[in-house]
Amino acid sequence: MTNIAICAPATPITRDHAAALEALVAAEFPTHSVTFHEQCFASSGHFAGDDLTRLGALLDCANDPAFDAVWFARGGYGSNRIAEAAVARMNASARSKTYVGFSDCGYLLAALYRAGIGQCAHGSMPVSAGSEGGREAVRRVLRWFAGDNSGLEPSLDGVIPAAAFNLITLTMLARTPIMPDLTDHVVMVEEVSEHLYAVDRMFFALSSSLPRIAGLRLGAITAVPENYVEFGQSADEIARFWCDRAGIRYLGRAEIGHSAANRVVPFGLAGPAGAA
Amino acid sequence: MTNIAICAPATPITRDHAAALEALVAAEFPTHSVTFHEQCFASSGHFAGDDLTRLGALLDCANDPAFDAVWFARGGYGSNRIAEAAVARMNASARSKTYVGFSDCGYLLAALYRAGIGQCAHGSMPVSAGSEGGREAVRRVLRWFAGDNSGLEPSLDGVIPAAAFNLITLTMLARTPIMPDLTDHVVMVEEVSEHLYAVDRMFFALSSSLPRIAGLRLGAITAVPENYVEFGQSADEIARFWCDRAGIRYLGRAEIGHSAANRVVPFGLAGPAGAA
Repeated sequence: MTNIAICAPATPITRDHAAALEALVAAEFPTHSVTFHEQCFASSGHFAGDDLTRLGALLDCANDPAFDAVWFARGGYGSNRIAEAAVARMNASARSKTYVGFSDCGYLLAALYRAGIGQCAHGSMPVSAGSEGGREAVRRVLRWFAGDNSGLEPSLDGVIPAAAFNLITLTMLARTPIMPDLTDHVVMVEEVSEHLYAVDRMFFALSSSLPRIAGLRLGAITAVPENYVEFGQSADEIARFWCDRAGIRYLGRAEIGHSAANRVVPFGLAGPAGAA
Repeated sequence: MTNIAICAPATPITRDHAAALEALVAAEFPTHSVTFHEQCFASSGHFAGDDLTRLGALLDCANDPAFDAVWFARGGYGSNRIAEAAVARMNASARSKTYVGFSDCGYLLAALYRAGIGQCAHGSMPVSAGSEGGREAVRRVLRWFAGDNSGLEPSLDGVIPAAAFNLITLTMLARTPIMPDLTDHVVMVEEVSEHLYAVDRMFFALSSSLPRIAGLRLGAITAVPENYVEFGQSADEIARFWCDRAGIRYLGRAEIGHSAANRVVPFGLAGPAGAA
């Protein structure tokens, strides 16, 4: 039995999202149980409740020994505002859990990984259970919770540690107190709904900020808005340009991103050998 | 006579933009001459020519003793890609010039200010001469070139050094080799066409990156796109929140931004006492 607690450190989900995940788990993953914290449905302006409400719910889930894993309900924006405080208040029970999410929830994965708390993984989130394509991405996470590694990013070799982030999330956290040490890691980045000039700009910022990493992989760059002019370089060319310029090994693509193809990337060395 | 060279380190302008500025200068500023580098009208994907073309034009203008000032034609995106190389190749003549621009051209102002080259100033750009409102902002810069300080940001006191940046520009350059030392400066930031959650996210990133500054002023936050939900805090509240959280003195508003009200902010101590 894997007991999974779900909270929303950034933006809220609806009860329909929750029902869709509960139905999927009941039908296909009888050894899992999912528990939605009531805070998932709270709302305060942009956020799923104010900072203290979101922080409290995250700590309720992380610090409760009844749960094996904490799954972040959805990204959006906002987990950065509570990440430092959350990590500072986590107990021994929190340290033995698995934490899964991506996109904006990368701030939490960063802070947890930096603090050495639990097993972090980049993976799709409960909100995606509401769509057919999203359900397949959600199944990869649920399988991984059950020790089935078939949904892992295929390049993971269990030898070189890895971490995966949304590009703007990593760019924004790179100089803050929640930045983990990514030395010797393969770093994977993906982006959604950003212009290619903004992707270029983030690589400019990020490529000067990273330590000596093992290499960079580019995930999917999806939903690029149309601009008044073609940028003139593809996302792959942009990544290659800045990696070359900054002396970072460019390793090619990774199957992560804001799409149904999004794979699981456990942080560190938790590769194909075994789940959390 | 002030001889002003104009080049486009980011995106191109049209010949109509150039003609509008030339007409304005001829009609109202007979002691100025403006010379557009042909590169202003070049195009390569997103940019006003490829990196080498833009770099070459900037150096043509900066290193030529015939010019007193270099005025960046327009922002957009791209000056970050050539800023380090440009500063490394500037000669003695470049060191005695005035450099004016803002928005994306803040990367150049940062690199120049860091290197102690010339007198940098945040100010409107030639592209704005094409619109009635923009012309008034352009006149402030032209007046300042002539030693008339009436268009300066009113809070400048000539005692505390200042610098002004587009928010995402400063956020992106904060950890790169072109970041100047802003210790003890009043730092002013403005933004355009960004969601309030993105403004919040940039303050999160930036407030951990700044040295001990004299304080922060918030310029105009314009053309904020509509989001599916109200953010819940105003731009002023966001700035205040992050300044409070990071231990930065919040000094209120500044009259800078992507609007006709944009004022001139000379970098450093070149306040009301005298122009460049």
